[in-house]
Amino acid sequence: MINNQELIGYVAAALTTGSFLPQAVMTIKTKDTSSLSLGMYTLFTLGVLCWLIYGILIFNWVIIIANAVTLLLAACILSFKIYNTFISKP
Amino acid sequence: MINNQELIGYVAAALTTGSFLPQAVMTIKTKDTSSLSLGMYTLFTLGVLCWLIYGILIFNWVIIIANAVTLLLAACILSFKIYNTFISKP
Repeated sequence: MINNQELIGYVAAALTTGSFLPQAVMTIKTKDTSSLSLGMYTLFTLGVLCWLIYGILIFNWVIIIANAVTLLLAACILSFKIYNTFISKP
Repeated sequence: MINNQELIGYVAAALTTGSFLPQAVMTIKTKDTSSLSLGMYTLFTLGVLCWLIYGILIFNWVIIIANAVTLLLAACILSFKIYNTFISKP
């Protein structure tokens, strides 16, 4: 049985991780990253990587799974931003 | 004394929370939200609110402070996106 505290933790993790899916889909579809902050996605991707390492160190599966998925989505968005900023010349 | 596990947890929290500052500053300065996903910021802001409630329930100050700051920044970005999508007609 999970209690109410755990439940709200799982809902929180599902929402914050899941939220990057519509952004990743939108970025892949439109390839537009003009109003996305490079600083944000750089710091955020590094932060999520740290959360993943933290989850592995304390062996917490919720933290591991949530952050592995978020890392994938955030790294995808960051790749588009880096490509548009430094490689593609419009 | 904090151990290495706790340290990486604090670094992770500082990075993921701090990452929303450059995005908020960029959004406030440019007012451009064209490539930001409304779905992402709606889900994310709700998720961070749940994390804040979770932090209060388990009385964990790191979770409370990190998510209170992130909530403020995410809600600010979401407000601009809602204004540009539903209120302002360019």
